[in-house]
Amino acid sequence: MKFTIERNILLENLNNVIKAISIRNVIPILNGIKFELTDEGLYLTASNTDLTIKSFIEKKKIKKIESNGSIVVQSKYINEIIRKLPDDTINIEVIDGLKLLIESKNSQFNLNCLKVEDYPQIKLEYQKDPIIIKGNVFKSMIKQTVFAISNQESRPLFTGINFKLQGNILEVTATDSYRLAKKTVELSDFVKEEINITIPGNNISELDKIINDDENVEMHIFNSKALFVYKNINFQTNLLSGNYPNTNNLIPDNFAIIFNANYNDLYDAVDRAALLTQNKDKNIVKMETNGNNLTISSYASEIGRTEEVISINKNEGIDIGISFSSKFMLEALRTLNDDEIVVLLNSETKPIVIKSSKDETLIQLILPIKTY
Amino acid sequence: MKFTIERNILLENLNNVIKAISIRNVIPILNGIKFELTDEGLYLTASNTDLTIKSFIEKKKIKKIESNGSIVVQSKYINEIIRKLPDDTINIEVIDGLKLLIESKNSQFNLNCLKVEDYPQIKLEYQKDPIIIKGNVFKSMIKQTVFAISNQESRPLFTGINFKLQGNILEVTATDSYRLAKKTVELSDFVKEEINITIPGNNISELDKIINDDENVEMHIFNSKALFVYKNINFQTNLLSGNYPNTNNLIPDNFAIIFNANYNDLYDAVDRAALLTQNKDKNIVKMETNGNNLTISSYASEIGRTEEVISINKNEGIDIGISFSSKFMLEALRTLNDDEIVVLLNSETKPIVIKSSKDETLIQLILPIKTY
Repeated sequence: MKFTIERNILLENLNNVIKAISIRNVIPILNGIKFELTDEGLYLTASNTDLTIKSFIEKKKIKKIESNGSIVVQSKYINEIIRKLPDDTINIEVIDGLKLLIESKNSQFNLNCLKVEDYPQIKLEYQKDPIIIKGNVFKSMIKQTVFAISNQESRPLFTGINFKLQGNILEVTATDSYRLAKKTVELSDFVKEEINITIPGNNISELDKIINDDENVEMHIFNSKALFVYKNINFQTNLLSGNYPNTNNLIPDNFAIIFNANYNDLYDAVDRAALLTQNKDKNIVKMETNGNNLTISSYASEIGRTEEVISINKNEGIDIGISFSSKFMLEALRTLNDDEIVVLLNSETKPIVIKSSKDETLIQLILPIKTY
Repeated sequence: MKFTIERNILLENLNNVIKAISIRNVIPILNGIKFELTDEGLYLTASNTDLTIKSFIEKKKIKKIESNGSIVVQSKYINEIIRKLPDDTINIEVIDGLKLLIESKNSQFNLNCLKVEDYPQIKLEYQKDPIIIKGNVFKSMIKQTVFAISNQESRPLFTGINFKLQGNILEVTATDSYRLAKKTVELSDFVKEEINITIPGNNISELDKIINDDENVEMHIFNSKALFVYKNINFQTNLLSGNYPNTNNLIPDNFAIIFNANYNDLYDAVDRAALLTQNKDKNIVKMETNGNNLTISSYASEIGRTEEVISINKNEGIDIGISFSSKFMLEALRTLNDDEIVVLLNSETKPIVIKSSKDETLIQLILPIKTY
């Protein structure tokens, strides 16, 4: 293997695949990135067995190819080395069978490599008719939901994000059982059979980092894995097994209390109230309506208390006082891109639902916290 | 105590004094900031007994004073609260004796406080004729030396930075016994008696963060403490006891090998060579002269090796190969603000001296590492 390539092209593709390298990995060969230079171009592959990313640099983007070949390069050093090389042009060559020689201007790196024969055979599988979704639509639906997954391994399904596709309606759900985020997206194509899969949240977050424009994302879905194709990147993840609970019945159809609030007023008041805490993850904030006034308050016996009143636009009828995690509320609010948001409630023990005033496709739900 | 003040004025002064609060402090009252509102203005004080910072806001910068008084406020929350308040104007009032009420627009904070009687009496002491130095000169001499102090408590004096003042020449030295940084500054005034003090490095770094322009810094030096006055800020630190070693005899007067190198060429080559390491603190890089070529190389058995040749301008005579810590070399180089630097050597076991080509007042010295 011997070729000459522009530094930024190689670096961009290395940065894509390195996302599949797990810091907790203990299998030496999986700390490596597989380089395969063929007549088509250069394939880079990294995998942690649960997630495999393969990035392709077509031949015409490579300055010069002297000979094909393949090798596995330690991922820990290669990206930093390529990034810091002195010149825009890099010569790469396998020498002595198991060494990679990297040359740029007056700088030479000679890296020990791993045998390509030891690299696991990972099959990427494709459907004939993948499901198509725009990159930016895909990216925002992930961002608006994935924060709500659980990090508790005791309930593995909740560490994933659920994709449910019926007809042309894709419903994306994440929950840790204390809060829930649900986004509905209308696709241009219809599927014949319902699809219901749960993708590991950490993997989908890596895909989110790769997507950066509105180019199509192809979804190739199988029973136990899903492959996403975006530009020159193939991203294959295992799926979580088990039946994701039906969460639609958790979201009430009717609400006794509905009010609109200015986004910044509400966000900033909760953010300030959250300051009075010794444990950022467990800070309880209370909100109380009094007609068109909403009082946001919090209390910590050792520190003190805080209170702020903001104006809201509330429906006629009963008032309410309800307590919640400020962290969950702020994270939910951050997904809503609107000047005005709607808060929907039934009672102090029933879920808090938050939506944008203009967009019905995104629902954020938070369970209240009982205070005595 | 009741007053109205602009948020940014209060915040800036709180940010100054909070630097004296130690995260390892176990004395509850020293987690607090003392507020004292008098006829002159508002004094804010924080201390960890080793370091005391007092910041003063004169009366005319306070919008409205209704009554004087004093109280000790928990430092953990006050800065974030002030920073996040909704309005530029803040009302502050002591209520119920031990609570601070902070009001801004519709937001109210009610903070538990500590008794001012429990706050230690800390005397700030001043000389009649302090030593004067420009703020930016002081700041850069600290930056150019303090990185070289030791963090090993076993040799306490080396955790400090030494100020030696004879006549009008101030010599600032820091060393951890493996490297040494020395800066010489000419002051406008002369002292009659020699001054030789060692200031805790961590404290002087906090002072460095406060200084941001060329306003004068007054140095009031006593046997066991030093007080620095900069603008409205009084900064008093204890001194380290003991005789700082005479380091001048460590710096050779004559050198067998002298070469000039382009700053970026040398810095980048060492930076790249430093990539091949598993332990960033212990990476050994080697440089070898061959006439006007300098080869920078490093080797790590598990990873590989790297080599780069840069052009230098060397004196006639012998060549040398010498190994050193890349971390120490990069940190030393960062203090030199010049396109061209000078490297001075005697042998592979003798110190490496690095200077700017234009400025003789700053010397960086690194001991070589023996390799076999």
